[in-house]
Amino acid sequence: MNLLLLEEADFVAADRVVLADRRFTHMQDIHRVAVGDRLRVGRIGGLMGQAEVLSLAAHQAELRVSFDQPPPAKLPLTLVLAVPRPKMLRRLFQTIATLGVPRLILVNSYKVEKSFWQTPFLHPDSIRENLILGLEQARDTVLPEVIIEKRFKPFVEDRLPAIAADTLGLVGHPGPYPACPRAVDRPVTLAIGPEGGWIPYEVDLLAEAGLAPVQLGERILRVETAVTALLSRIF
Amino acid sequence: MNLLLLEEADFVAADRVVLADRRFTHMQDIHRVAVGDRLRVGRIGGLMGQAEVLSLAAHQAELRVSFDQPPPAKLPLTLVLAVPRPKMLRRLFQTIATLGVPRLILVNSYKVEKSFWQTPFLHPDSIRENLILGLEQARDTVLPEVIIEKRFKPFVEDRLPAIAADTLGLVGHPGPYPACPRAVDRPVTLAIGPEGGWIPYEVDLLAEAGLAPVQLGERILRVETAVTALLSRIF
Repeated sequence: MNLLLLEEADFVAADRVVLADRRFTHMQDIHRVAVGDRLRVGRIGGLMGQAEVLSLAAHQAELRVSFDQPPPAKLPLTLVLAVPRPKMLRRLFQTIATLGVPRLILVNSYKVEKSFWQTPFLHPDSIRENLILGLEQARDTVLPEVIIEKRFKPFVEDRLPAIAADTLGLVGHPGPYPACPRAVDRPVTLAIGPEGGWIPYEVDLLAEAGLAPVQLGERILRVETAVTALLSRIF
Repeated sequence: MNLLLLEEADFVAADRVVLADRRFTHMQDIHRVAVGDRLRVGRIGGLMGQAEVLSLAAHQAELRVSFDQPPPAKLPLTLVLAVPRPKMLRRLFQTIATLGVPRLILVNSYKVEKSFWQTPFLHPDSIRENLILGLEQARDTVLPEVIIEKRFKPFVEDRLPAIAADTLGLVGHPGPYPACPRAVDRPVTLAIGPEGGWIPYEVDLLAEAGLAPVQLGERILRVETAVTALLSRIF
């Protein structure tokens, strides 16, 4: 936790917060804070700044806070991702928040197992929890938007063309395609397939929506590694 | 498992292998293979090719194998990494094998907790197991070399200069440094610090050994994400 993220409900006054949950435990067990210590804090959706520990009780801490610094810029990106297996999904929410993805659209795909859609990690509370862990890692305060599109074809045919319009549309896909571009200086719409990849029909539909296939070389990457590798190369 | 990796001990004839372990279970449970099915295989340290399932018994499978394809090229890189926490370390062995890192040197650092060195994931058998998982993911056959250097100063002062000679030496480190270079076309020696980063003394010693600090932006990345992001940008 490189940034302590504060919710509106934590505030007991304009410049005071009281923490009693996971964040309090983390402050005690990992940071081993004492009264008078200073910590980096951020207001969810708002500015970042400093906190000073005013008091520590058995189960809670009170901090004086001030905010003066904007969070880092997000990537100019919409990321479309086939739903990965639950364990990977959970980490992916953290990773995309850390990397500065502002909008994630989770879609179905032929090779997504139906059971993946049943995971509790798709519950809004769980999504938010993991996004916050990713923001705390990166030192960012702004939650990415997460959109769930269970049906591939209606999404790609009816809604994706408007999302991809005026952006560079890309599909990360192993095969005889052009190499993924580097250092792109305009907005990007990027689609990344499931383990096992998109099927040709899906690649065709994505291409009709304005997303051109690009590849990163012969090596087959796990989804989480592919997301980081593609974003690091594109931006 | 995108590639079934074969050990010398699996061979019962020049073109036949018998599998009875994790790989047999995986073939049955995940790939649901039947007699006559074909699979991608590789010989550890050697060529890749095809296998045909000749017979399936309750606890083992026999395959006919042939090899004709070289594994993908490795990156021209020596990666120097401060030992991360055990759970991260385990995944990192997989990730660096997947990404094509040919040589990993694990070093101590001021912010590495002493307990990290006690993890069973540093046992040679465990390292090999996780490297193989990474190779199977990527479709590669050649195990990366892993070197353990428990003492930072003697390694950096006495051995790192010769490793970094005639390479582009870089230290990934957040701060007011030049941006990490892109699309480098020569060998690289890259050092990545622990959670919490190198201390200034360590950055100075690494610089004396020929490694210049570079940064990837304001966001603080987990070590695994930083490794993927830096390699994807540099190569």
